Amino acid sequence: MAAGSSSMRILIKGGRVVNDDVTQEEDVYVENGVIQQVGRDLMIPGGAKVIDASGKLVMPGGIDTSVHLQQTFMNASTQDDFYSGTKAALLGGTTMVMAHVLPERDSSLLEAFEKCRSLADAKACCDYSLHMGVTWWGPKVHREMEVLVGEKGVNSFQMFMAYKDTMMLKDCELYQVMNTCKDIGAVARVHAENGELVQEGEKEALDLGISGPEGMEISRPEELEAEAAHRAITIANRAHCPVYLVNVSSMSAADVIAAARMQGKVVHAETTLAHTVLSGMHYYHQDWAHAAAHVIAPPLRLDPNTPDYLMGLLGNDIINAVASDHRSFTTKQKAMGKEDFTKIPQGAAGVEDRMSVIWERGVVSGKMDENRFVAVTSSNAAKMYNLYPRKGRVAPGADADVLVWDPDAIR
Amino acid sequence: MAAGSSSMRILIKGGRVVNDDVTQEEDVYVENGVIQQVGRDLMIPGGAKVIDASGKLVMPGGIDTSVHLQQTFMNASTQDDFYSGTKAALLGGTTMVMAHVLPERDSSLLEAFEKCRSLADAKACCDYSLHMGVTWWGPKVHREMEVLVGEKGVNSFQMFMAYKDTMMLKDCELYQVMNTCKDIGAVARVHAENGELVQEGEKEALDLGISGPEGMEISRPEELEAEAAHRAITIANRAHCPVYLVNVSSMSAADVIAAARMQGKVVHAETTLAHTVLSGMHYYHQDWAHAAAHVIAPPLRLDPNTPDYLMGLLGNDIINAVASDHRSFTTKQKAMGKEDFTKIPQGAAGVEDRMSVIWERGVVSGKMDENRFVAVTSSNAAKMYNLYPRKGRVAPGADADVLVWDPDAIR
Amino acid sequence: MAAGSSSMRILIKGGRVVNDDVTQEEDVYVENGVIQQVGRDLMIPGGAKVIDASGKLVMPGGIDTSVHLQQTFMNASTQDDFYSGTKAALLGGTTMVMAHVLPERDSSLLEAFEKCRSLADAKACCDYSLHMGVTWWGPKVHREMEVLVGEKGVNSFQMFMAYKDTMMLKDCELYQVMNTCKDIGAVARVHAENGELVQEGEKEALDLGISGPEGMEISRPEELEAEAAHRAITIANRAHCPVYLVNVSSMSAADVIAAARMQGKVVHAETTLAHTVLSGMHYYHQDWAHAAAHVIAPPLRLDPNTPDYLMGLLGNDIINAVASDHRSFTTKQKAMGKEDFTKIPQGAAGVEDRMSVIWERGVVSGKMDENRFVAVTSSNAAKMYNLYPRKGRVAPGADADVLVWDPDAIR
Amino acid sequence: MAAGSSSMRILIKGGRVVNDDVTQEEDVYVENGVIQQVGRDLMIPGGAKVIDASGKLVMPGGIDTSVHLQQTFMNASTQDDFYSGTKAALLGGTTMVMAHVLPERDSSLLEAFEKCRSLADAKACCDYSLHMGVTWWGPKVHREMEVLVGEKGVNSFQMFMAYKDTMMLKDCELYQVMNTCKDIGAVARVHAENGELVQEGEKEALDLGISGPEGMEISRPEELEAEAAHRAITIANRAHCPVYLVNVSSMSAADVIAAARMQGKVVHAETTLAHTVLSGMHYYHQDWAHAAAHVIAPPLRLDPNTPDYLMGLLGNDIINAVASDHRSFTTKQKAMGKEDFTKIPQGAAGVEDRMSVIWERGVVSGKMDENRFVAVTSSNAAKMYNLYPRKGRVAPGADADVLVWDPDAIR
Repeated sequence: MAAGSSSMRILIKGGRVVNDDVTQEEDVYVENGVIQQVGRDLMIPGGAKVIDASGKLVMPGGIDTSVHLQQTFMNASTQDDFYSGTKAALLGGTTMVMAHVLPERDSSLLEAFEKCRSLADAKACCDYSLHMGVTWWGPKVHREMEVLVGEKGVNSFQMFMAYKDTMMLKDCELYQVMNTCKDIGAVARVHAENGELVQEGEKEALDLGISGPEGMEISRPEELEAEAAHRAITIANRAHCPVYLVNVSSMSAADVIAAARMQGKVVHAETTLAHTVLSGMHYYHQDWAHAAAHVIAPPLRLDPNTPDYLMGLLGNDIINAVASDHRSFTTKQKAMGKEDFTKIPQGAAGVEDRMSVIWERGVVSGKMDENRFVAVTSSNAAKMYNLYPRKGRVAPGADADVLVWDPDAIR
Repeated sequence: MAAGSSSMRILIKGGRVVNDDVTQEEDVYVENGVIQQVGRDLMIPGGAKVIDASGKLVMPGGIDTSVHLQQTFMNASTQDDFYSGTKAALLGGTTMVMAHVLPERDSSLLEAFEKCRSLADAKACCDYSLHMGVTWWGPKVHREMEVLVGEKGVNSFQMFMAYKDTMMLKDCELYQVMNTCKDIGAVARVHAENGELVQEGEKEALDLGISGPEGMEISRPEELEAEAAHRAITIANRAHCPVYLVNVSSMSAADVIAAARMQGKVVHAETTLAHTVLSGMHYYHQDWAHAAAHVIAPPLRLDPNTPDYLMGLLGNDIINAVASDHRSFTTKQKAMGKEDFTKIPQGAAGVEDRMSVIWERGVVSGKMDENRFVAVTSSNAAKMYNLYPRKGRVAPGADADVLVWDPDAIR
Repeated sequence: MAAGSSSMRILIKGGRVVNDDVTQEEDVYVENGVIQQVGRDLMIPGGAKVIDASGKLVMPGGIDTSVHLQQTFMNASTQDDFYSGTKAALLGGTTMVMAHVLPERDSSLLEAFEKCRSLADAKACCDYSLHMGVTWWGPKVHREMEVLVGEKGVNSFQMFMAYKDTMMLKDCELYQVMNTCKDIGAVARVHAENGELVQEGEKEALDLGISGPEGMEISRPEELEAEAAHRAITIANRAHCPVYLVNVSSMSAADVIAAARMQGKVVHAETTLAHTVLSGMHYYHQDWAHAAAHVIAPPLRLDPNTPDYLMGLLGNDIINAVASDHRSFTTKQKAMGKEDFTKIPQGAAGVEDRMSVIWERGVVSGKMDENRFVAVTSSNAAKMYNLYPRKGRVAPGADADVLVWDPDAIR
Repeated sequence: MAAGSSSMRILIKGGRVVNDDVTQEEDVYVENGVIQQVGRDLMIPGGAKVIDASGKLVMPGGIDTSVHLQQTFMNASTQDDFYSGTKAALLGGTTMVMAHVLPERDSSLLEAFEKCRSLADAKACCDYSLHMGVTWWGPKVHREMEVLVGEKGVNSFQMFMAYKDTMMLKDCELYQVMNTCKDIGAVARVHAENGELVQEGEKEALDLGISGPEGMEISRPEELEAEAAHRAITIANRAHCPVYLVNVSSMSAADVIAAARMQGKVVHAETTLAHTVLSGMHYYHQDWAHAAAHVIAPPLRLDPNTPDYLMGLLGNDIINAVASDHRSFTTKQKAMGKEDFTKIPQGAAGVEDRMSVIWERGVVSGKMDENRFVAVTSSNAAKMYNLYPRKGRVAPGADADVLVWDPDAIR
């Protein structure tokens, strides 16, 4: 499905080129992995391979802004490494992924980054970049953030307001990280849930004998996400730093974001594939494995209107991007939490299906048009991470991350 | 300032091309009034005139979505005809204007259109289109709307909720016009002020002896605009028709629009140059002529935060476009309302200054960047009126409506 | 259930007196239809009849702020006259009703009032007052409003934004009536639905072949109520007149009201029994008679969360009162609209059940406490209509409209 | 001004009795410190002292819900002890004060309470109660809270989200305290400012060389209050505990409260005298002593609309009570922070002036009527702290905390 970035000469002929602003019937000529020409009646050197795109859409390759590959999380190793994960991405029409480096508390960010980088370079089949997790704070972290941006090409950092005692930062630490992000011009990604109350909720749920996957939503309901989103936005505003909220999973958190925007605050928002199509009723499935497979954070929400609402906000530009937040575990791994939902490794797959499912549930259902589809799966990400228009657009000079998309195909 | 759409070969060299999504250092090659190439190290035929754009910005020409030329309004003829008006537009960097045809009640839209069209064709120096005013309703209007769209190239209609007894439509008429717009795919522009209460307010103000220009804001305060905006959005939603609110002049009306968007309603919004930079304090100026010169509808607002708020919303994409709503009258014409503010012909100039003032007050002041400037002065208009990317973008295939803009120049 | 206002001496002993602010164990002594003493260990003249209220609540009698008795509406005469209606009220614990006088367009308000007054005086079993409908406007109406307030004891007027071509007022007329209400200190009641769009919706529904009761909600969805509420509040604010919205039936209209209050506007709100306990699903009942019995205006709403939401707002003081809007028709009368839902006489019974149903669905369900129950069924009405504390409170000097309420009884 | 609770017989004659729900011309007869009768033409035993209240208002004595007496705070001892403080209260029409006990971290609440109690009992001239500060958390605190409520008559606890490293509680601790409050039926008072960011702001301000009183508003702007209010409400909602926010000082915090109420959350709000009448411009006064005298927490706000907005919300029942938060320091004490605003003891006087200033700025200015005045200065407090109707109402059986108020007097 993806016409990779080879050095061959390729002419994609007869399709409709879809960018985030407009759709046009044009041919696309690629050489040396770069789009050379876009237009009609192109003058093309000989020897180009011709792809017939009649009746198809030609779009910029997907950018999945959050995947977890070759990572250990909650005592489990993700099923996918950089090879299998990026291969799946390409199969699904995604030509770039952004993975996470999450260093241990008190350990070097730089070392964790270098280690992850070498793992990825050895295996990745598509373009990738790395979000650097800031899981603790101190002068050393500050220095390493500067080095990572200045010398290593990192331009995004991820903070957690949840995961108390492991990755959670206190408000004053969030403030320091955001201040640093602003100074060095990096994207400040924030996972917003009130980690203190999540922990209280987990204890209470377990005390009440609620040990199954349904404990996820019971212990960390959406008001804890809305609260943290409100707090993150306030802290970012104090630091004069744009803030990028990830895994937006609930109507109330989205409302907080929309309200902040109306006040002129710069807030970017990313949701995940799962949250835009599934509800928390899955936690009550009689099959434990089914329920556990849906354990992600924040949890899927019980209000059945949630997925449609979030999909609508993607169509609306209130949520700007949809990632897979791909983190694949086996049922056996999930079973570590058989007796205690807080021990279920959180995560679900999605890097391969993201584009096709959003197409089906977003575009085919009428919640967005093809241009918005390109925006939320690719162009917006490219813009927010400063890759645009090299990525995220079918235009001369751009990387040849070009999809030929059959709007009628059913996966 | 504007490199017109001549048939010459022109190479604009060394500038930074600013589109609404990105800025890049590129050359632009124009031939036969069409942009042929945009990029670096272009292969150009000989004989092209070279414009040195070093240190300058190369942007799509401005589109002024509301001007009034060669029109009689409130018993006065506008100072500018299609010649002087479009010439001023070009001087200010605007390469396309949208003018208004406002037929008398019960008279043919088609005839009014044709008449205006012939006046315009004879004189216009730049591209133009015409918004067709729907000032009354009946089966004939419905038929003529279809003809205008199907055969005459019209794609926008303007309705008035103010101007009772002349141009105001009742709610059921607004509904019918919007239904028709939806069926024929035209833009439904609405001037939103509660015309019934405006008239009551005018009577009361005059009864109280308030006859000067300050009567404008006293008799039609912003709550009448917010009310009508809310109503227009409701009616449009009932008709499943996107709605385009014009001359958004107040914080409360803008809030109504933003709230509707959050609910997923499709609402476009246009403000005017005057409203984004001036407050209603001018109505209290001791010089009557000065005060009267600021009489426009809706009036400038008394809350001094208003202009900054509206400019911020342009920067924010909550308001999508800024027009001049150019309608120029002399002091002598304004003086028809010397004893009665309701008789002051409403309007102010702006088609020439729009781009430079928004640059200075919007971009230089930090309320928007250069890409948003292009969006609100040109690209968004092109998109909303289905002219994009032929207009509103510097890209191959687009009309050669290219501005070379000196970011440091002071008008 | 109601201890009427007889001239006997009555001692209500051992109950818990519930007012809107506090509950206390106290005895109540009544003489000559007036509460003489409230307290413990009262010194009582001999010969009083003693009512044992142990385990019971002693509350002010209900005030039903909207009933329709002995009225012709939509070509049908209400089943209840002032005798049967007020008898039912008393049976249900309501000791005062407010009925409506709705004069024909262009006819005298005063004459309609006098006629209704004489009908009511001849038959009413409990206290009553009359809301005067203002169904048209002119200098005569203005004069008659003054006379009604100054000489006839009227202190409330009802306007309609729906019922186009019969009772609907235009915005400028609403403004004039509200201005007059403010000047003469009367309550300005408004039925808020956009009558123009209701009529459009009705035509469209019938054109589509929707002729059954479900046409009610389809033709006049809640956005038409929210719109009109917003408009009514704006008009009232322009007139500096508090506004009292009746039959608040939807979440979105209630939100408009709450938002206006937060802005400091004086808005009172009344809902009806039916709207707080029933949803619009009844219009889809397979039994036409069942569906038609639920035809009221505004219609019951399709969103199933609506009744709980409205009941919650009563518990919250965002909606201030709940009326029955009692208007009882037989199935045969309803059948006038068998082929056309717009001809079904709108109305439902409720004057007898109002108190007990609100107790059960409001208090027993935990949505409000006993004091709020008294507030929304009695005290708030007394306060808004300037009857307090003669009505709406169990206190010395008040009318002996005292209920002895068994909190455990099931009707 | 206050007719104390003596054992004498007193007849207050000819005044207008103002309660929070109604005003009536009635006489009030007091005996043994209790109101015996309220009405006209009372039958009074002989020998009563008669107070002529003609032309005056007879109201329930004020309840000041927050004063600091005989307390050491920020290394300074308050000027007023329980004698001078309660004497001032009585002079100003306040007949009950609620003072604070703020134990050291890790020390016994019970001991602190007993110590304060004995100081107060020895000196207080009017009724008082004590809010128990919860300045740390542990099983011992939980047990002591139970004892305080069960055996010592305490029914309110105060938490701080500011004052990091001294009184600030973490979110999980707030949750535990609120859970306990709910279980034991006590009022959960919360001072809402984000203490972590306040500390960051203080460091930054001092680093920038901002050492004067203006540093107060710069280092802890209102968004930090709004954030904490939002968080407190969320935590309380999780604990199913009503929450009582104190010292509400800003428009944005008040908006958070109003929005939460609209969602059905139970939130009480208290502002202070200073915040309803003064703006933060005082921090820029050229006289340091003047500026320092206005250092309170949260600080006065820079937006000049704030005081009017808060007063309006008192008139509106969105803010329920206004306390003095009386904490009086001398200029010499304030001078400890001459070089560092964070060392200025925070506090201002107000217990004596509260009633008269709210009368003047609230009632005389038209922002509330006399009934709302009684509500916000007395009745609401009595209701929220479960003292009603013994306190907060002029009615038989109530304490004789009766004010005879001259509406025309100027202090």
